Formats: sequence, structure tokens, C-alpha cells
Amino acid sequence: MSPRLPELPPDVFPAAARRVMARCDELARVTATPGRIERVYLSTEHARVNRLAAEWMREVGMTTSQDAAGNQIGRLAASEPHAPALMLGSHLDTVPDAGRFDGIVGVLMALEIVRLLRAPHADGWISPLPFALEVVAFSDEEGTRFGKALLGSSAVAGTWSDEWWSLTDADGTTLREAFREFGLDPGRIGEAARRPDELVGYLEAHIEQGPELDRRGESLAVVSSIASARRFQLVIEGEARHAGGTPYDMRRDALLGASEAALAVERICRGEHHIIGTVGQLEAFPGAVNIVPGEAHLSLDLRGEYDGSRDRVWDEISADLDGIMGVRGLRWHAREVHNAAAVMCAPLLRDVVREGILETLPRGADEPATIFSRAGHDGMAIGAITDVGMLFLRNPDGISHHPDEAVSIGDVSLGIRALAESVLHLAAEHR
Amino acid sequence: MSPRLPELPPDVFPAAARRVMARCDELARVTATPGRIERVYLSTEHARVNRLAAEWMREVGMTTSQDAAGNQIGRLAASEPHAPALMLGSHLDTVPDAGRFDGIVGVLMALEIVRLLRAPHADGWISPLPFALEVVAFSDEEGTRFGKALLGSSAVAGTWSDEWWSLTDADGTTLREAFREFGLDPGRIGEAARRPDELVGYLEAHIEQGPELDRRGESLAVVSSIASARRFQLVIEGEARHAGGTPYDMRRDALLGASEAALAVERICRGEHHIIGTVGQLEAFPGAVNIVPGEAHLSLDLRGEYDGSRDRVWDEISADLDGIMGVRGLRWHAREVHNAAAVMCAPLLRDVVREGILETLPRGADEPATIFSRAGHDGMAIGAITDVGMLFLRNPDGISHHPDEAVSIGDVSLGIRALAESVLHLAAEHR
Repeated sequence: MSPRLPELPPDVFPAAARRVMARCDELARVTATPGRIERVYLSTEHARVNRLAAEWMREVGMTTSQDAAGNQIGRLAASEPHAPALMLGSHLDTVPDAGRFDGIVGVLMALEIVRLLRAPHADGWISPLPFALEVVAFSDEEGTRFGKALLGSSAVAGTWSDEWWSLTDADGTTLREAFREFGLDPGRIGEAARRPDELVGYLEAHIEQGPELDRRGESLAVVSSIASARRFQLVIEGEARHAGGTPYDMRRDALLGASEAALAVERICRGEHHIIGTVGQLEAFPGAVNIVPGEAHLSLDLRGEYDGSRDRVWDEISADLDGIMGVRGLRWHAREVHNAAAVMCAPLLRDVVREGILETLPRGADEPATIFSRAGHDGMAIGAITDVGMLFLRNPDGISHHPDEAVSIGDVSLGIRALAESVLHLAAEHR
Repeated sequence: MSPRLPELPPDVFPAAARRVMARCDELARVTATPGRIERVYLSTEHARVNRLAAEWMREVGMTTSQDAAGNQIGRLAASEPHAPALMLGSHLDTVPDAGRFDGIVGVLMALEIVRLLRAPHADGWISPLPFALEVVAFSDEEGTRFGKALLGSSAVAGTWSDEWWSLTDADGTTLREAFREFGLDPGRIGEAARRPDELVGYLEAHIEQGPELDRRGESLAVVSSIASARRFQLVIEGEARHAGGTPYDMRRDALLGASEAALAVERICRGEHHIIGTVGQLEAFPGAVNIVPGEAHLSLDLRGEYDGSRDRVWDEISADLDGIMGVRGLRWHAREVHNAAAVMCAPLLRDVVREGILETLPRGADEPATIFSRAGHDGMAIGAITDVGMLFLRNPDGISHHPDEAVSIGDVSLGIRALAESVLHLAAEHR
């Protein structure tokens, strides 16, 4: 078997990319909020996109199943029936008011890789691969509904925690109840877990969700690692008082403490290299126009290339908040809701992704970019059971988690070719 | 008729104060939120407290009616049937998670004044007053439900605006729909308006909602004026982006702009005399833990003793916000939702309130305190049609709009006596 794709008709990759883009549009119409894209875990929209994905998996010859955590899986067996599988994929869930490519484009590109690699060609180069191919459409990566990210891939990695069953959504529905409403049995969650010996590795294509490739003028990048992340919910407590009658020297205004906290996060992280902190949620209570806020809630999302520097920055922020709240007579506490160590991409998978991208570049071109992912991905969970590799696609202006999120059809076309070449390079290594 | 109360049994005022306190407790149990006090305009709780107030009005001999804006009114005619009325009162609606005295204590004290002044005494001093007495329990002062304060008293003042009909509550119900659901006819709102020639003036007792009297160690104060107020809803627009992938130099974070705005309001107002600004509401959108906020909404409540300084400070805040938002690449705009000019208490009513308080003090005591009200009151609207006077009661630690809001039974007892004396002094002036 050749480690490279043969000459193919010139329109093969653009046609595949057009199909990916059309399906991104089709999936964007499956939303809980007309006019916006919102598709959360265990919703009716989740069930609808799983059915669509299963149909498309069968169309490229895969057998399909939905696992015990609602992940949609397609499998193309190897000629050797007990051969382990290379897992390709990404997620189909979204943030609120999302773009149409984050996660989704990776699932749809994976289907095109399967289509390409099993297509009959005149010179019969394709089969058999030394491993099975699986495409996984993960059910929850964003954590939009229950505040806990990576639920789908954690189930596959066997790192599901029973504590999560009592997480609730905005309507007070627990994760356990949502499982049942979706038709899943919480008692069978363990069946979603995969064993390391069943897997060759996990390869994912994803938009960069940052501006690096756009700034460089390049289409594709090798991912070196997925950032380390911690998330906190902060509560600041002061005293609610009448807005008119309470002079400033008697106020303990929780909202002003929260405002200073948000600005402190920005100031401290800006002074760092490769650390980024974001306050995405802030709310004041009781939340009346004429009451000094007695309580404020805010979220903190903290990411870094390395766990150590991320943790040191959190300590600095904590010390700063102690000072701010002390001056204002406020109390504060934080609850950690997410903690993910940095995941390094496996050297072999980095190498085959690099080889795949090189196949798309003119001879003598510069080395493809290697960047670390500041965003979290399903590979963070899957890294617990198998090697992880990732390919990034240029994301114009770095806009993601926003309706303006984009990727060009040309870059998707190059990405499909690069990823298919990567799989063949990996197959050659497995001979 | 004597301008002063006769000698009365020593327990008359304490007994009246005990009744006021017990009724404050009774009204506190009429709430939309068990365990907290919340009673908003045109709610079932509003209807229930109106029924209670009407019962208590009839108990002291008044005829009762509910006007076209849901205000509950009691009237005790003068012997001269066409004599104008002295209006006493305050409001029965509350902020969310309110205390039990703001507004309420003024309505209940007014009922005790009526009881005192019409009580048969051995020396027959009481009747007839040269004016009718009315007690009004205003239906909406706080503006909790529709964001617009003073709806009840604006109807009485004849300053209702048809623009308000389309205001909506948190559930999307319009003010017009809420009127109908409550059993009121929006087309008859004009019938609530009173003519200046029907009224002698308006006298209100209210807790201070500030710490001045508590700091001085005094029970009662004459109010000189009610603060000038403006309220704005501010919208800050940036761009929602992925929290991990977007470097700081590409962010246009609306929440950080809003945080700087809230702190700028505090900094500018702290540098002023008698101006106070409060941001009571702040929310970030889309409000996800992993998205840089693209939009933030905040409220601003701005009060001052004089309209001119209040407006100058708003101009300063606006200029500051232009600077903050410019640096951050954000846009902002403000919608003014409330604008009330300062209302000066009428010299005659200030004088009778002062005389009333003096009656409660030992001979040779210092002059009673005169303070201006930073909080808004129904008198701000009623000032459009008649003279306004107010009496403040000490509010321990100045805590109001909070469950810990308090007033002592001793101060209520003194307040009832002072207000009754004030009415007799006013009657003497009207001879």
C-alpha cells in the first residue's frame, strides 16, 4: 500500500469540501433558537443531528451506533476483524448563538476521509488499511447545557464521574433526568467507555478558533498540544442597600468588586505569556436599578500552554481578589467547575499530520505551522486512553463561538486532502 | 380648634405604633416569593394588600375606593362637603427581597392619624377640620415590575404617559395587558387624576433610607426636598469571540467595558458633593463561560440634590465612557428611562412638619434635623398638582431595600404624634 494518495480527478477534494460546507449549512438549521444556532446535549436537536450523521455514515459504508452517552459512532471494519481502530471525529453540539463550523466541520471532514479511502480506484491502492476507521460525532464538548464540558468524550474515555449526574441545566433538569428523557439509561454509561487496546489513536480536524494561521497567511497547522484549562464560578458577597440613601462610605457593593475582579483578570493575564483569562458571565443580585448589589456571580475561564504557569496565575489572581475585596468590605469564594491538564499531541500523530499538510504544499515550501490550541477539544478527554493528533484549519480573523465564524471552502478542501494523507502515512507506520 | 393635641392617655401613641408594626408584619406575609417580600404592581399580592388597606380605612371611618390606576384611597369628609382634602399616604408595593417598612409604614401611620383626629375626646377638640382627610396607598412607587417608577402617583397627578402602555415586565406582559388582568380599564386611566383645587397638600411619613438620623441620634427629620433623579439603561457592544483562541489584542470585550463603566460612575460621583450614582444591574451576553462577551447591559441610577449638578455629572460620565469604549473598540449608547426633577417641599408644609416634630421634643431641645431625600418618593409625582411635605423616621444603619430594613416602635410612636400635630398646625393655618 502506498503511503500517499494516487493522482485523483482534480475535482475530488473541492467536491468533498462543497459537500462538507452544504452539510454545515444543513446542520445549522437544526437549532433550538430560530435565527441563531444553539444545539445542546440531550436535546431534541441533538437527536436530530445524530440521525443525520448516522445517515451520512451509512452512506459511506459505515455501520452505525449511538453509544450510552449519546455519541454517534460510525465504523468501517478493517480486513483483519480484530484490528484496532483509528478514531476520527469532533463534536456536533454548540455554544449559544454559535457559528456553524466549530466541531461540526471536523465530523464532516472525517466522513469525507472515509469516502476517499474506500473509494474504488483504478489502481486499487486503497484497501486494506491495517486498522479499522471510526468516525465519532461527540455529543457534548462545549458544556453549554450542564456547565461541564467534554461530557461525551469523557464517557468514551471512561472518565465519567458519578458526581455529574446531579448537575442541572438552567431549567433545573438534572443530567440524570435528561439522560432518561433522551432515551438513555444512566446505569449503562460505562458501556460507552473504550479500551486503549481497541484504538490506534484519535485524529481530529478543527478550525483554529484563533487568528494565528490567518495572520501567517497559511491554511493548515499541526497542533502541538491542547491548552491546560481551569474554570471557576466566583461569588462576591457584600450588602444590598437602597441606591439613593446609602452614602459611598457605607456601601459594600458586590458589583463594583466584581468589576474590579474582571479587570484584574485581564491585567494579570495580559502580563503573562500564553495565559489567557476570560470572564464570560457576570450577574448582580438582587439586580434592581435602585438597589446597591449585595451579591455578584462571575465565571472565570483560565487557559495556558502549561499547567504550572496556569496555576501560578490563578494564585496571583486569588491574591489580587483578596486585596480588592478586603478594601471594599466584601467576601469572595470560588468553586472550581473544570480542571483539565494540558494534553500533548503524540509525536507520531504530530508527524503524520505534518506529512499530510506537506503533501498539500508546493515542493520547497516552508515547514507547516505548529501551534498549540488555546481552545479545549475532545482530545483532552480522549488523551486518557489513546494518542491524540490534531489538524487546524485557518479561521478568518480568528472569530469563533459567534455567527460570523468562518472557514474557506479552499482550506476545507486542502484539509481533507491533508488528513487523508495523514491517515495513509499512519497506515504505513502500522505495516 | 386648638393647633395642638390635648393631653391624651399615655399609651395612645405607643398603642398606635404597635398596631402599625403588627400590620407591617401582616402585609409582609403578602408576597409573591415565600420567605422574601416581593409585591409588585398589578399582581395578586397588590389586590390583596389593597383589600386589607380598604378594610383598615373603613375601620377608622373612611369611605374607600380603588382608583383607575389601582391606588387604594380612603376619604374622611370635612363638615363642609366641598372642602378640599389633605392627602396623607405612601405606597404598598416593594422592590424584590424588600424590607417591610419602606412606604408601608407611611400608609399605616396615616391611618393612625385619622384614627387619632376623629377619636371622641372628653373636651371635644377634634372636629371639624377645615379640610377633608384622604389616605392614599399608592400602587406603584418602586417601578419593580415595569422598570418605570411612580406609576401610581403619576396617574393621580395626571401625568400618565400613553407611551407607558407598551412597557413590559420580565415575562413580556405589557402594562396594558396587566391592567386588564387586574380588572382595570386602561381607557379610564384619566379618571385617577386629581385637580389641584381638590387638594390642600400632600403629607407623607417615610423611613429615611439613609443613615443621617441614626448618625445624629435623632428620631425624626423635616424633609427639605426630594432628590433629582435620572435612570439610564446602557448597552455596550463589542464582539463575541472564543475565549480560548482570541488573544487580548483582538478582543472587544463588552463586559470589561461595562466593568470600567461601573467603576467610572463610582469614581466620578465620589468626587462630587450630594451626587450618588449606582449600577444595580449588569449582565453579559451571550453569557457563556467560554465566550468573550459581545454585549453588556447595565443600569445607572443617578441622584442629586439639584438637577443642574446631576446633569453635569451625567455629562462627565458620558465623556468618560466615550474614552473607555474608544480605547477598547466598543460602542455604547444609553436610553433614559426615568427623569425626575428635584421636588422642593413647600415652605408651609416644611414648617408644620417642623412644628409637629418640635411637639415631640423636650422644651429647649435643638432644632429638628432638616435633610434632603436621596431616595425618590410619591411626592415627586404629586408635586405636579399640590404642595408636598415629608417627615422622615430614623432608619437604623440606613439599611433599606433589604430584609434587614428596620424602624423602632418608639420612633413610629413619636412620628405618629408629630404627624398628627403637623395636621393640626396646618388646620390652624387654614382657619
